[in-house]
Amino acid sequence: MSAPRSGEFDLIARFFAPLAGPGALGLKDDAALVKPSPGCELVLTADTVIAGVHFREGDPADLIARKALRVNLSDLAAKGARPIGFLHALTLNPGIDDTWLELYARGLGQDAHAYGMPLLGGDTTMSHGPLTITITALGEVPAGEALLRSGARAGDVVYVTGTIGDSALGLACLKGDLLLPREDRAALVERYHLPRPRVDAALRGIANAALDVSDGLVADLGHMAAASQVAIVLDRDAVPLSQAARKAVTKDPRLWERVLAGGDDYEIAFAAPESAAARIVSGVPPITAIGRVGAGSGVTVTVNGTPLALSSTGYRHR
Amino acid sequence: MSAPRSGEFDLIARFFAPLAGPGALGLKDDAALVKPSPGCELVLTADTVIAGVHFREGDPADLIARKALRVNLSDLAAKGARPIGFLHALTLNPGIDDTWLELYARGLGQDAHAYGMPLLGGDTTMSHGPLTITITALGEVPAGEALLRSGARAGDVVYVTGTIGDSALGLACLKGDLLLPREDRAALVERYHLPRPRVDAALRGIANAALDVSDGLVADLGHMAAASQVAIVLDRDAVPLSQAARKAVTKDPRLWERVLAGGDDYEIAFAAPESAAARIVSGVPPITAIGRVGAGSGVTVTVNGTPLALSSTGYRHR
Repeated sequence: MSAPRSGEFDLIARFFAPLAGPGALGLKDDAALVKPSPGCELVLTADTVIAGVHFREGDPADLIARKALRVNLSDLAAKGARPIGFLHALTLNPGIDDTWLELYARGLGQDAHAYGMPLLGGDTTMSHGPLTITITALGEVPAGEALLRSGARAGDVVYVTGTIGDSALGLACLKGDLLLPREDRAALVERYHLPRPRVDAALRGIANAALDVSDGLVADLGHMAAASQVAIVLDRDAVPLSQAARKAVTKDPRLWERVLAGGDDYEIAFAAPESAAARIVSGVPPITAIGRVGAGSGVTVTVNGTPLALSSTGYRHR
Repeated sequence: MSAPRSGEFDLIARFFAPLAGPGALGLKDDAALVKPSPGCELVLTADTVIAGVHFREGDPADLIARKALRVNLSDLAAKGARPIGFLHALTLNPGIDDTWLELYARGLGQDAHAYGMPLLGGDTTMSHGPLTITITALGEVPAGEALLRSGARAGDVVYVTGTIGDSALGLACLKGDLLLPREDRAALVERYHLPRPRVDAALRGIANAALDVSDGLVADLGHMAAASQVAIVLDRDAVPLSQAARKAVTKDPRLWERVLAGGDDYEIAFAAPESAAARIVSGVPPITAIGRVGAGSGVTVTVNGTPLALSSTGYRHR
């Protein structure tokens, strides 16, 4: 039911071999060799993205590739890891032609280069299902220094990088659920298509716990609270918004829910002791205090100190 | 278009967390931490298997899981690597229920345990496409000692472990293309469902080049010849066959082509200098000399020293 194998070899040689790093054995050996730097351990993370689930069928091929790589870079960044490389499992279907693949490989190569993240290996397969991309990303951290979800302590301040909600509002624009001025729409849609993994956030030795915001800010803080066995109180109005998102929620406050629960932000939320405040350098990325860790469990969203009811605290893929 | 995220978390906790190894952070942290043993480097390999392409839709769930893991173990074995663990990206669809998943996880756990290959992380997603499994396997080898495809030298002897063609003949039985006595059929079908990755083949320091036979013996020897820039001459009648396969090709010699080109063998083919012959211990797995490396390029199949024409030298997934 699929293309002949020779197609796979041609495809790899033509589109993917140019992205290969030194450990990739030219993508000719069905395996990669990797050695972490002295004193370091490897961080591994895998994410699958599927047409119609995690991106829209008609999204530009280069942006699909770049987003697939960036969501994995975001996971590495949240661990405080330096990117090393990635394995790329791509399942194509008969509807995909060489023009598409060329653009896809160009996007993948662009970000692989920009983030110092060479291709190390993978697999290319065919099915009659939706386009499916599984990227396994490798990074390294000094042994024992990886940031985990589980280290938040009562008394910690909760911070987040960048701005929250742009991607969810961008998707709402794309789906026709939200009408905004042209330049606001463009800014938000760009954030949906192209997350900015916070590989520059230097949080090791500062944060007690960290994770990347992919499922939605409230849901992800919930994961941190659960893993750390603490409660988190989020001050809604402290959540950093872009200019476009600020205008949108000011006009329609119901959009706060999309902002807090929408997901696909790929910012880093972290908890750090109050004593670390002076060492938290806000620049690129900007860093904003948004809440507090206390005893208990779960996440409470407050406005002016008053708890708010959210009808949905998670993130459902559309 | 997919199940709510909460489903994913439940599913991981219920079915996959019990398989997690120490570096997996309880599968709660979106990442795994791995440190190779002192003096070792990591070997990474990824393989995707898809319902209707790499296995049959109705195959038993536990066998699907075990085969998905074993084909990756075979890649590690061919590199001379010791298994460390695996990442597991599973794309489900609405046709899959908890009964199926339970059997799948049981099979995965059985082989993860048997091969000392703990689950380190992964991703679980939903689509309306075919069931798709991408496993990224990690192993380790003493630095610089991984077996590659590219080291074969003129004068080397070519060997293969185990027996060749069983899986391809087993698939032919399943598809109704081949009628065999019941016990022969059962033996061949079992080889199709359950490859035996040759993790015990102790080839480091002996083989100049190695790979696992997945695309078909002739095609894979072609990969070795190309990577090593040599020619390989294969003596067809030296290729080791199981009793069931021997009976089948004796009755119908046209089946030789399926044996040599069918693939899915997951044996290891390797080239070693003649001087190493005494150190090649044939036991478990059995090891058989099947050919010679010379100057030139490509693979020639001979019978009684006379070159044979093969109509297909590769392996096309059905």
